[in-house]
Amino acid sequence: MKKRLFTPGPTPVPEAVSLAMAAPIIHHRTPEFEALFAEVNDGLKYLFQTQNEVFTLACSGTGAMEAAVVNILSRGEKVLVIRGGKFGERWAEIASAYGAQVEAVDVEWGHPINLDLVANRLKATPDLKAVFATQSETSTGVLYDVQALGELVRGHQALLVVDAITGIGVHELLTDAWHLDVVVTGSQKGMMLPPGLAFVTLSQAAWQAVETSDMPRYYFDLDKARQSLEKNQTPYTPAVSLVVGLKEALGMIRTEALENIWRRHQRQAQATRDAVRALGLELFAQSPSNVLTAVIAPQAPSAKQIIATLFEQYGVKVAGGQDRLKDRIFRISHIGYVDHADIVGMVSALEGALKHLGWNFEVGAGVAAAQRVLTAEQGN
Amino acid sequence: MKKRLFTPGPTPVPEAVSLAMAAPIIHHRTPEFEALFAEVNDGLKYLFQTQNEVFTLACSGTGAMEAAVVNILSRGEKVLVIRGGKFGERWAEIASAYGAQVEAVDVEWGHPINLDLVANRLKATPDLKAVFATQSETSTGVLYDVQALGELVRGHQALLVVDAITGIGVHELLTDAWHLDVVVTGSQKGMMLPPGLAFVTLSQAAWQAVETSDMPRYYFDLDKARQSLEKNQTPYTPAVSLVVGLKEALGMIRTEALENIWRRHQRQAQATRDAVRALGLELFAQSPSNVLTAVIAPQAPSAKQIIATLFEQYGVKVAGGQDRLKDRIFRISHIGYVDHADIVGMVSALEGALKHLGWNFEVGAGVAAAQRVLTAEQGN
Repeated sequence: MKKRLFTPGPTPVPEAVSLAMAAPIIHHRTPEFEALFAEVNDGLKYLFQTQNEVFTLACSGTGAMEAAVVNILSRGEKVLVIRGGKFGERWAEIASAYGAQVEAVDVEWGHPINLDLVANRLKATPDLKAVFATQSETSTGVLYDVQALGELVRGHQALLVVDAITGIGVHELLTDAWHLDVVVTGSQKGMMLPPGLAFVTLSQAAWQAVETSDMPRYYFDLDKARQSLEKNQTPYTPAVSLVVGLKEALGMIRTEALENIWRRHQRQAQATRDAVRALGLELFAQSPSNVLTAVIAPQAPSAKQIIATLFEQYGVKVAGGQDRLKDRIFRISHIGYVDHADIVGMVSALEGALKHLGWNFEVGAGVAAAQRVLTAEQGN
Repeated sequence: MKKRLFTPGPTPVPEAVSLAMAAPIIHHRTPEFEALFAEVNDGLKYLFQTQNEVFTLACSGTGAMEAAVVNILSRGEKVLVIRGGKFGERWAEIASAYGAQVEAVDVEWGHPINLDLVANRLKATPDLKAVFATQSETSTGVLYDVQALGELVRGHQALLVVDAITGIGVHELLTDAWHLDVVVTGSQKGMMLPPGLAFVTLSQAAWQAVETSDMPRYYFDLDKARQSLEKNQTPYTPAVSLVVGLKEALGMIRTEALENIWRRHQRQAQATRDAVRALGLELFAQSPSNVLTAVIAPQAPSAKQIIATLFEQYGVKVAGGQDRLKDRIFRISHIGYVDHADIVGMVSALEGALKHLGWNFEVGAGVAAAQRVLTAEQGN
């Protein structure tokens, strides 16, 4: 059976990227690799919309989150974590593990941030070293307004650190223009690569924090990475084949252009949301991300049944809920190498699965709703 | 030009492994991945010759070294590092970065360990928490006697931690039988994969140390990895495509069988060493590893010239010296997916390059010397 991933990472890898990675491996301490890495680094600056360097690490997104924490913080420093899902919680866990004093603004899962709360905490705690946020909270399907956070934090001494792991390459994210001090992402989301690479970029203010930071670090030492990057190198062996694929993927991103990529994801997410509602199901997120659509599962059929039927009968892989949302939602992701036909096909499969499981709705209503959005503009 | 890697990582990736990794990406939170990972974990136990679990991390070998340090040590604990090259130094750097008290037995670069020195230090320092060693020191081409170290450390309370990053899958290494408490390796060496995965295994004694360890850790938290592994999972997104390739590579290793793999590397290394000497060049290592042959460069031609000519005229990529050995040696690696014809071809290319650069020797002498070794036994 033909299988299709609608999961929030890994996402489908373009054939051209897979083929590039299947070429004979090259050695990394060579002019050949350095030229390739220079091109990759240019492409990363475009993707992140920054003039600063973007560092490529061999690890998952969580590794890049750890790199952000251990390079800019010192032990005992106060940080504020905006926590409205599993990935917000992760910021708090990492910062605590390394000895930061963690305070949190707890956001109800599925809801947007109350910016006034954050503003009050910033005012009340002038010695905050950093605010940790998430652009697209993958566990709930919520998009947080990172641009507004940037404006808010800008007037304070705190650094703003953003997990854009699923957000980048899907939603607009302007690192420099929005005054984001640290932004991290992973390879297996909007970047359309297999997992195994993660990325982090730092503003000048963040680099100043690196100079005084006393947290222990070695593998994730970004100062070492900065010295190596001057020679288009990495301090330790890079994940060469993934970097080769990255060059290909960044080329595709440049060709499509970020504005078009953001628009495409908006359209595909809107089509999915409209389709889900046309089938009589409800969305979980109040301010939904274009990364994924979190759907509240009915009592019957259950999330588990819907997920299993979609995969077994249609080869369509969607994700379940995590932690406290386990069995309460299912998550349909539409990130990266996904187009018009994929969305229509997925919605039709969802209809087929729901029908098989006895859910009451008008067959075709979902596909019609998706089509209305997808064909409103020309092209994919 | 056809290019051939004779570098100590990345090493050539078998075509079957590349093809496996080019298949459509799968999601990791699935029974499909779990079945694959279970098979991989069995294969890893065979490769490490251990009954304990082997953990697959998404990072380079240095990341696995850091995982070893931060999981078994507590701040302020005393450790002994056997340091005879760049990778011995790395153990000391990581342990220091995380606040261990590092003592070292400094071994002259290129020379074997003086076991008496180590024995004396163990006796003199009964509160040593761990001894850190390297099986094959890639910067010098030296093989250290890890089995003898295992015997030595066994009578003390210290744990023995071994960097087998280039050694495993090349030299005999019996984790359990030799009483090695922690063994780490990386994917891009004898395992024949691209870089991006690293591995670590712990004895029961090492796990006891994990329980009391107070070093900060998150991404490299092995206790979390152990909990996940019970369900054939990883705590954070694994590098899925590399794990798929790993299954293929471990299958090849099982088919060839470790004893044959060790013998093949012995033969290929001996052929290379004999060939180099037949050309009038000297080896750097006193107790040479079968991983790579470190050759002392003459004044003229220089290491730089030999390396460049080999690559430009023959597509044969060998490595230079690192740190204090830069420009003093060149390193011909013969790890992993390398056979009889590769070695003969490489030696012939070396002869061609040396002749071009005006070195005085009898053309054909190197190839003849290599052949004598390679054809002494049947097969590759």
